[in-house]
Amino acid sequence: PAHRLDGIPPTIFTQMSALAVRTGAVNLGQGFPDVDGPASALARAARALEEGANQYAPGIGVPALRRAVAEHQRRHYGIDLDPDTQVCVTTGATEGIAAALLGLVDPGDEVVVLEPYYDSYVAMIQVAGGVRRPVTLRAPDFRLDVAELRAAVTPRTRFVLLNSPHNPTGTVLGAAELQAVADVAIEHDLVVITDEVYEHLVFDDHVHRPISTLPGMAERTLSLSSVGKSWSFTGWKVGWATGPAYLVEAVLNAKQWLTFTSGSPLQPAVAHALDAEAGFPLQLARDLQARRDLLCEGLAAAGLPARVPEGTYFTSVDVAHLGWADSTAFCRALPERAGVVAIPLRGFYPDSDAGKHLVRFAFCKTVPVIEDGLARLVRAD
Amino acid sequence: PAHRLDGIPPTIFTQMSALAVRTGAVNLGQGFPDVDGPASALARAARALEEGANQYAPGIGVPALRRAVAEHQRRHYGIDLDPDTQVCVTTGATEGIAAALLGLVDPGDEVVVLEPYYDSYVAMIQVAGGVRRPVTLRAPDFRLDVAELRAAVTPRTRFVLLNSPHNPTGTVLGAAELQAVADVAIEHDLVVITDEVYEHLVFDDHVHRPISTLPGMAERTLSLSSVGKSWSFTGWKVGWATGPAYLVEAVLNAKQWLTFTSGSPLQPAVAHALDAEAGFPLQLARDLQARRDLLCEGLAAAGLPARVPEGTYFTSVDVAHLGWADSTAFCRALPERAGVVAIPLRGFYPDSDAGKHLVRFAFCKTVPVIEDGLARLVRAD
Ligand SMILES: CSCCC(=O)C(=O)O
Ligand SMILES: CSCCC(=O)C(=O)O
Repeated sequence: PAHRLDGIPPTIFTQMSALAVRTGAVNLGQGFPDVDGPASALARAARALEEGANQYAPGIGVPALRRAVAEHQRRHYGIDLDPDTQVCVTTGATEGIAAALLGLVDPGDEVVVLEPYYDSYVAMIQVAGGVRRPVTLRAPDFRLDVAELRAAVTPRTRFVLLNSPHNPTGTVLGAAELQAVADVAIEHDLVVITDEVYEHLVFDDHVHRPISTLPGMAERTLSLSSVGKSWSFTGWKVGWATGPAYLVEAVLNAKQWLTFTSGSPLQPAVAHALDAEAGFPLQLARDLQARRDLLCEGLAAAGLPARVPEGTYFTSVDVAHLGWADSTAFCRALPERAGVVAIPLRGFYPDSDAGKHLVRFAFCKTVPVIEDGLARLVRAD
Repeated sequence: PAHRLDGIPPTIFTQMSALAVRTGAVNLGQGFPDVDGPASALARAARALEEGANQYAPGIGVPALRRAVAEHQRRHYGIDLDPDTQVCVTTGATEGIAAALLGLVDPGDEVVVLEPYYDSYVAMIQVAGGVRRPVTLRAPDFRLDVAELRAAVTPRTRFVLLNSPHNPTGTVLGAAELQAVADVAIEHDLVVITDEVYEHLVFDDHVHRPISTLPGMAERTLSLSSVGKSWSFTGWKVGWATGPAYLVEAVLNAKQWLTFTSGSPLQPAVAHALDAEAGFPLQLARDLQARRDLLCEGLAAAGLPARVPEGTYFTSVDVAHLGWADSTAFCRALPERAGVVAIPLRGFYPDSDAGKHLVRFAFCKTVPVIEDGLARLVRAD
C-alpha cells in the first residue's frame, strides 16, 4: 500500500458496527438513525427511478438540487448563492471533505482543526500532505479556548477546518466562539472549511449560525453539509459544498476524479426533501432532544454521568472513575459485558490525552432501542 | 487551489454534454445510454427504498452485492473470490480508480498505461504523485505494440493500469496482447490495475478475458468494474474492486475517506441485476453491435470513415483529411456546423501526437438518435 495512509487505521465506525452485528449488541456507536426520513422523499426517489433519472447526473449536481440547496441557504441563513457556480453536489459530506482538502491543501500547508477530530479529517489532511494544528476541546464543557486557537496559527497556516455542531462532543459554537474564529481567519487570511452536517440538529435555545454569515467571512468560507443527518437518509450519501465560486470550483475540480457524480435517482428526491420537507429537520431536532435527555439521564442513573450536548446525535461520558486503562479498552469490553456498543474517543484525540477516558454514545436511535441499551448498562453495573 | 491538480482541465465529458444541452445538438459525446437497464432492477431499487435500505451501507458494500459480484466473476470467468475480503463496492469504477491509485501509488512510482487515456487516469496518477509511462495505441488499428510496452518499463515501474475493452479506441486486447502484458508484469513484479467496465460489451467473435485469469496473474491483479455500462445504469455509480485481499484492502482503506459508502438503496438493486438479470449484458452487446454498424456505416457515408471497434460504446474517426487543425477545433465547431456533439481525442493523447486528428463518436444511443445524428452530419457535409 501507498505510504500516504501510513498509520491511519480503518474507520472506527466500521469496526464498531461490525462488532455490534457480531455480538448482537445494541448499537449506540455509529451515528445513523433507525427510522428513515420523510415518506414523500422516498416516493420522490421511487418516481425518479421510474422516470429515468438513471444515467449520469452532471458532476456539479442536477439543477433542481443545486437550486434547492441555494434556497435552503437563503431560507435558513439569508445566504445568497448562484446555484450554477456556488453549489456543488457531493457524495455526502465525506466526499466534500476529501475534495476540499485535495482541491485546496498543498503539502506543508497547516490546517487548524478542532480536536477531537472526525476521523476522515485526520486521514484526508494527511493524504493531502497538510499539517494539522490542533485546538483541543476538553471535558467537561468542550468549549473553544480562544487563546489556544490564536496560538495554533503560524505563518504556514492557510486553513481552518471547522465542525459545528461538533461531532463527537455535541458542542455548538456560540456567537463569541465563532467571532473569534472569524477574527483569526480574517487577520491571517485563512480559508475556513466548515462541516455543518448537524446544522439543524441543535437543542434547547442553542442556535447554529454558519460562520460564513459573519462579516468578511462569506468570501473565505467553504461550507459542507448533506441530507444524511438532517433528513435521516445517511445511506443516500448526497451532500453539497457551497460558498464563493473559487472554492466551490476547487471542490468540483477534485471530486470529478473521485466519483465524477453519484446517486442520480436520489438527487431529485433530495431536492424534494429540501423544498417540500423543509420543516422535517426542526421536528427531528425536537424529537432528538427528548431522546438526548432520555439517554443522558439514563446514563447518569447507570453510573455514567453524561454531558448534555447542545447539538448532534451524540453525548459523551468520562469513564476514568470506572478504573479502565482507557476508553478503547472500555469499548472493546462493553459488548461482552453489557451488550452495548459505544465509540471510544481516545482515537479522536491523537494530539493530546484529553480523550483518553471519553466514550461516545449515540441517541439517534428509537426510544425502545435507547431504553434497551440503558437497561443493559444498568444490569451490567 | 492546490497544485496537485495543476494543468488538469475539467473533464471533457462535462464540457461537451453542457455544449450539447446548450446548442440542442445530438449528443454522441459522453458515454451513457438513453434507455435504462432492466425494469426488474428498477423495481428492486424502489423496493429497497421502501424496505428501509436508506442508512449507511458498510463501506465495503452490502453482503448481497459482494456475493453477487463474486458469483458474477465465478460464472463468467471461473474466478473464485471470498466476498468478505476480495470484493469491495465503490462509487462507480471512477472511485475504484481513485482509491486504487491513492491506496497503492507512492510519489515517483511509475505506472504503465495505454494512451489514449481515460481522463481520470491522468488526473489521479498525477494526484498520487505517480509518473505515467505511455504505451500508445495508434490509428488505424489501435493494437498494443509489445516492443513499446517492454520499453516503457523501468526499474521504477510498479504498476500497469490496463483498460480493455478500451475507451476511447474500442480495442479489445487479444490473447497474445494480454499474455505480453502478463509476461511483463510477472517479469518485473508489477501490480496490474484493470478497468473492465466494458467487459460485456464486446462484438463479433471478440472475447474479453480478464488478465487476472492468466497464470501467475490472480495474485497481482486488481480488477475494477461497475453496473453502469453493462446494465445501463450509469447514474447509479455502483462499481466494485475485486482481487487478492491485500489489493482490495488498499482500495477500501482509501475509499473509506473518499466517500465512506454510497447508494445504500441502489446496492441491493445492483445485486439483483447481477443475479437475476445476468443475461442482460449479452443482449445489450448484441443490440449495441447493430448500432455500432449503423453508426460506422453512416459515418463512412458522411465522409467520416470510422474504425469498427471490437467493444465499448465508441468508434473513432480520423479527421485529418478534412483540413481541421486538430480534433478539438473540429469538435468545437461541430455543434454549430452540424448539430452533433462528439469528443475530441487530442486531449486523451497528452504524450504523443497520435490523437491530434481523432474524434470519438458514441453508439450507445437509440437508433433514431444515431440516425438523426448521421442525417445532420450528411446535411452539414
Ligand atoms: C460515516 S460513518 C460515521 C457516522 C458518523 O457520522 C458518526 O458516527 O460519527
Ligand atoms: C464519467 S463521464 C464519461 C463517460 C464515459 O465513460 C465516456 O464517455 O467515456
